[in-house]
Amino acid sequence: MTGDLAARVRAFVDAECIPRECAAHVHGPAAIDATLAELRPLAKAAGLYLPQLPQAQGGLGLNWEQRAAVFEEAGRSYLGPAALNCAAPDQPNMISLLRQGTPAQREAWLGPLAEGRIRSCFAMTEPAPGAGSDPSMLRSRARRTSDGWVIDGHKWFITGAVGARFAIVLAQTDDGPTQFIVAMDNPGVQLVRAIPALDPFAIGGHGELRFNECHVTHDAVLGEVGQGFVYAQQRLEPARLAHCMRLLGRARRALAFARDYVNQRSSFRDRLADLQQVQAMVADCHIDLHASRVMTLDCARRMDAGLPVKTESAMTKVFVSEALHRVADRAAQLCGALGMSEDAPVALILRELRPFRIYDGASELHRATLGRRFLKTPEGDPA
Amino acid sequence: MTGDLAARVRAFVDAECIPRECAAHVHGPAAIDATLAELRPLAKAAGLYLPQLPQAQGGLGLNWEQRAAVFEEAGRSYLGPAALNCAAPDQPNMISLLRQGTPAQREAWLGPLAEGRIRSCFAMTEPAPGAGSDPSMLRSRARRTSDGWVIDGHKWFITGAVGARFAIVLAQTDDGPTQFIVAMDNPGVQLVRAIPALDPFAIGGHGELRFNECHVTHDAVLGEVGQGFVYAQQRLEPARLAHCMRLLGRARRALAFARDYVNQRSSFRDRLADLQQVQAMVADCHIDLHASRVMTLDCARRMDAGLPVKTESAMTKVFVSEALHRVADRAAQLCGALGMSEDAPVALILRELRPFRIYDGASELHRATLGRRFLKTPEGDPA
Amino acid sequence: MTGDLAARVRAFVDAECIPRECAAHVHGPAAIDATLAELRPLAKAAGLYLPQLPQAQGGLGLNWEQRAAVFEEAGRSYLGPAALNCAAPDQPNMISLLRQGTPAQREAWLGPLAEGRIRSCFAMTEPAPGAGSDPSMLRSRARRTSDGWVIDGHKWFITGAVGARFAIVLAQTDDGPTQFIVAMDNPGVQLVRAIPALDPFAIGGHGELRFNECHVTHDAVLGEVGQGFVYAQQRLEPARLAHCMRLLGRARRALAFARDYVNQRSSFRDRLADLQQVQAMVADCHIDLHASRVMTLDCARRMDAGLPVKTESAMTKVFVSEALHRVADRAAQLCGALGMSEDAPVALILRELRPFRIYDGASELHRATLGRRFLKTPEGDPA
Amino acid sequence: MTGDLAARVRAFVDAECIPRECAAHVHGPAAIDATLAELRPLAKAAGLYLPQLPQAQGGLGLNWEQRAAVFEEAGRSYLGPAALNCAAPDQPNMISLLRQGTPAQREAWLGPLAEGRIRSCFAMTEPAPGAGSDPSMLRSRARRTSDGWVIDGHKWFITGAVGARFAIVLAQTDDGPTQFIVAMDNPGVQLVRAIPALDPFAIGGHGELRFNECHVTHDAVLGEVGQGFVYAQQRLEPARLAHCMRLLGRARRALAFARDYVNQRSSFRDRLADLQQVQAMVADCHIDLHASRVMTLDCARRMDAGLPVKTESAMTKVFVSEALHRVADRAAQLCGALGMSEDAPVALILRELRPFRIYDGASELHRATLGRRFLKTPEGDPA
Repeated sequence: MTGDLAARVRAFVDAECIPRECAAHVHGPAAIDATLAELRPLAKAAGLYLPQLPQAQGGLGLNWEQRAAVFEEAGRSYLGPAALNCAAPDQPNMISLLRQGTPAQREAWLGPLAEGRIRSCFAMTEPAPGAGSDPSMLRSRARRTSDGWVIDGHKWFITGAVGARFAIVLAQTDDGPTQFIVAMDNPGVQLVRAIPALDPFAIGGHGELRFNECHVTHDAVLGEVGQGFVYAQQRLEPARLAHCMRLLGRARRALAFARDYVNQRSSFRDRLADLQQVQAMVADCHIDLHASRVMTLDCARRMDAGLPVKTESAMTKVFVSEALHRVADRAAQLCGALGMSEDAPVALILRELRPFRIYDGASELHRATLGRRFLKTPEGDPA
Repeated sequence: MTGDLAARVRAFVDAECIPRECAAHVHGPAAIDATLAELRPLAKAAGLYLPQLPQAQGGLGLNWEQRAAVFEEAGRSYLGPAALNCAAPDQPNMISLLRQGTPAQREAWLGPLAEGRIRSCFAMTEPAPGAGSDPSMLRSRARRTSDGWVIDGHKWFITGAVGARFAIVLAQTDDGPTQFIVAMDNPGVQLVRAIPALDPFAIGGHGELRFNECHVTHDAVLGEVGQGFVYAQQRLEPARLAHCMRLLGRARRALAFARDYVNQRSSFRDRLADLQQVQAMVADCHIDLHASRVMTLDCARRMDAGLPVKTESAMTKVFVSEALHRVADRAAQLCGALGMSEDAPVALILRELRPFRIYDGASELHRATLGRRFLKTPEGDPA
Repeated sequence: MTGDLAARVRAFVDAECIPRECAAHVHGPAAIDATLAELRPLAKAAGLYLPQLPQAQGGLGLNWEQRAAVFEEAGRSYLGPAALNCAAPDQPNMISLLRQGTPAQREAWLGPLAEGRIRSCFAMTEPAPGAGSDPSMLRSRARRTSDGWVIDGHKWFITGAVGARFAIVLAQTDDGPTQFIVAMDNPGVQLVRAIPALDPFAIGGHGELRFNECHVTHDAVLGEVGQGFVYAQQRLEPARLAHCMRLLGRARRALAFARDYVNQRSSFRDRLADLQQVQAMVADCHIDLHASRVMTLDCARRMDAGLPVKTESAMTKVFVSEALHRVADRAAQLCGALGMSEDAPVALILRELRPFRIYDGASELHRATLGRRFLKTPEGDPA
Repeated sequence: MTGDLAARVRAFVDAECIPRECAAHVHGPAAIDATLAELRPLAKAAGLYLPQLPQAQGGLGLNWEQRAAVFEEAGRSYLGPAALNCAAPDQPNMISLLRQGTPAQREAWLGPLAEGRIRSCFAMTEPAPGAGSDPSMLRSRARRTSDGWVIDGHKWFITGAVGARFAIVLAQTDDGPTQFIVAMDNPGVQLVRAIPALDPFAIGGHGELRFNECHVTHDAVLGEVGQGFVYAQQRLEPARLAHCMRLLGRARRALAFARDYVNQRSSFRDRLADLQQVQAMVADCHIDLHASRVMTLDCARRMDAGLPVKTESAMTKVFVSEALHRVADRAAQLCGALGMSEDAPVALILRELRPFRIYDGASELHRATLGRRFLKTPEGDPA
């Protein structure tokens, strides 16, 4: 059944998403919203919308193993996951609201988000010397007042911020890090700019935000005061894996484009596809994709079984982010000059995949953490 | 239940196999037979013997997924798989005899082999200009006579040949490539030498054999005349995967040794384990092992489900052989000069793992074949 | 003396070029021309202008070894080489005009080019199925008429085409490939567009050009009819090396930025510069830069000595293009999210260096050619 | 002139050294001494002996740049450098005796060493927890007595110890680390064993030594008391480079063997040399060799010019040791099963090159040291 659903997602992406990809999105990500307004009704009509939410919330109720195939297919186009409303950061934000939200918060924010009427963002990362990989360096502060809280802080690389209706903001309080739901039209919120970045068509861009004496009421607190880090950690592991799933589709698309190119193009009397270096590059791409897929699936099954994936998700994130980047890099190389231009999707996919080696924890950070953990593990543990 | 069995294999390897590893094996592989004569009765008594054969043949009747864990644990010592009688080439030879053998052939050869009273080998590979990776270059010939066949040919890198009681020999006939069961004491069989090689303690070494006017009777033919290649292909895919399983254990052992070393050794005032380069190398080893394990398991499950694994087993073999070599190389590096000596197991494991990138098809050959296959595949196939 | 000159170039780049780099250049390369109009008089006044041309032509008359240091320093900013008028494609075009140009052609084109009053381009590459890496696939045609030639063809990735005053165009004739000097305002020349590409601030962009019944007179032929390929080959080897020199500076700049970043930024209580993974990445960058520099210098000295560099320049181009890309990739990784943004130069340098693995001959093409050549070489040749 | 000398060394190695290589050397390195007794008179007669020593000491008086070519040619066979008496550890020991030795010490030890009548070793490295990479962990002690010194300690991986006539021993004293010349027949010296190691045919093996109440007279001190580390550092930089030179020749030999193999061997109807993967591997080998050679030469010229090479020699050692290992690994892979056997030189060369990534300072150690140094360097320093 998932196989069938994945095939339908695939057909939808081919028919509706890829033809709508355009340079206007690339050079100004805000333009994507208009395209999404077309796509989401189509996805709903096709029965493909909101795969990750329970059926009670209007979703398809897929478990993680089922999502893996669907997210991968959706991810072949940068428009696909958003068309199905399973793109970051809305997708993990919905999960956070489901888990930690009050009924009122769910009604106010989860409903419109699930329906696809609004977008949201997650405001955690700060520029130096604030919290990057290390959340203990959090500098944004929320102080309690008689009628709520006042938030001050500086955030950046807040994906999806441009055009978002609300943000989940992580800020330090006297009782520990806390998450707040903040409407983006709150006068204390300033969208400084969309940061020009390597991946230029992320929906809602990467925002730089300032919170200046930003007043919110008590009911802005998401979950419990002081539990903000715990919640952030909880969302991180599945969020990483969902990224792996979606970007697996993107890398596969780059390879498919390159395959068609080398099957047609000749040089020095040989069709490129007949050259062994080309064949070996294609083989390495498939090996990277296959390894990425089985590692991701293994994590998905563990999550479905309620098993911990702290170590496995970190190993998978490091491997997959680097493997997919290699795939995109080879695909671009296979296409020659065309692969360096925006005439083909491969250069853009290469730009989109490069930051994944940094976002959600740089590879180096994961390696150090994993290495220390393994060095303490008795060899009996085979992992 | 497999988990429990794997744990018992692990304990058996720690208690009985690793302590029996010795330099005499390394510098003259024939000495291993005496050690095996001690180990096999112990494995039988422990209920760990012959995991891969059906219970009707005295085995434990494990499916491929179950074997994966058991073979990995056994493979931590070069003595482990042979102690359990699941080492190559006897293990795939038993499967060949089970599938293609007549009742008389099974009684004569499979029985003693399964009981662990004799060893065997598989004589396919030939030195240049004969059949290496390309079986169509087969130069060994068998011609039909009134009462049987006469085989002439030159074979090398015939693992296990020294001390083997019989060989399954692949030779060209007028009706196509054919497999023959040939007793090693047939006067037409000459064991020229054990080839000195990088992996010096393979049980029975790597033999060079000459077949000089070697007469065999009609009942020496294994299966049908002319089907020798088909059978060879059939055995190759599972044989590769069984290698991946066993050698995964070996690489894990090298890493465990290195981990203990860096946890104890200091340099320039730092414990080696506290250095980030060391941590990153350890993390990369675990990522390589984890990816290798999940790819191998994925193939095992496909085989258990009766699905084809032609492509998956080739991708897995390329990845695993290279990944395990990286693990052993890093483990040796982590141990410094000790890692270059035979005082530690890591240098020997490094030598044992290097040839796996060539045996069972060199990586380059698999890459070219895989690449060509993928280049013809419509993108709908996600593999 | 070159050391002193290089130091002055370095100071000039720091004082005049880097401060003038701006986002407007990145998002629309045409804007660079205005900046150049400021910079070139300053470079002339500083005695740094036109390092590669003989003093008779108003240049500094440096040999290749001397240029290596100067080009590297200039190349730290994308504005540097053009400020000194030693950027591609003007730099090799000047050399072509010097070698193959008639006195009239030199006066008309070389003079203004050397003075920096105009820019030019070199129109060789064609989109599929035309001439990419393989010049024998040239499809642009020039047919002889009573009073000159008529050129028809389609070119792309013509670096510098936007705003160029003339192009040197390679087209097939009945007497073989021939180079023509074509004014860009010839009504038969159509600048279709600037191709959006990974390296978005190349001066004059990467143009797509169509030649539609483009009439030129006989004196448009550069050199001899039929010798167009020979000339193209002659310019290619030094052109590649000049690229290596300039881009070496660019990669060094990325590393310098990353070094300053990790020296200041902390994470998890450690200054990034104190982490061994960071130190190892920095060391690898320096090793890559050092190896690139000595290989480039070795070629430069051979050229100055009149020795052939066909093989050495190909080896150097492959190594340097890949090594510099690694440097930029590591530098970006070291800077975390900042390294993915245009707030820092590293992401842009990464984008600029990636295509060098394709431009001037893809690595795979060079490897195949080099491999075949070496396979025919008796071992006595140590190279 | 060096070119001519190198050609003569090359011819000598082909005619005299390579034919004398034999399995007996591999499986028991002591046998090499008999072979050397034949070779050294031939090298003297050919005017190739002792290239590195001044003519006053009977050498050829080559500078470092000249030695580079000669050492590389000699290094094509493991017998070559010893035949010319420019192998480690005798070669750096001679330099130490020349620099720090008293006239009496020179007469006693340098003379016979230079004449090739005896061999020597350098006893610095200790097993854990003693001095490995970090000399400050030195545990061997020398205490002053009325008539000299008494040395106690444990050393290992002392290359050349088996059959050596004397050792230069580094031991801690109350006045700092000090070097002593100790005759190997001193009753306080115990050669515990030759350590079985990956590189099994090093001349004189890798010895494990114990110094038990080893009495030496005052004139055993080499140089000044307390300066032992300083001297060790002084010898290390040129020693590393000499290793690079010699092993460059060894890697080149492996590649030459592989080239001949792929030029002759066919598989699946193609000559291996006609396959692009093979061509690319050959090209990468040559690029690695070329880069290694120019980096080594650059250091040699700096040493000849009296410039410091602390940083350059470390970068060169890391790069060259890793590059040459890649060359040998590819060469072995190109030869298939033959490359895994001792029938061809490549497997042995692979085993010989692997330890170079550890000996003379592991790559990781050099990277950390280099990284820290570069991180402190203002960007003005281009290295």
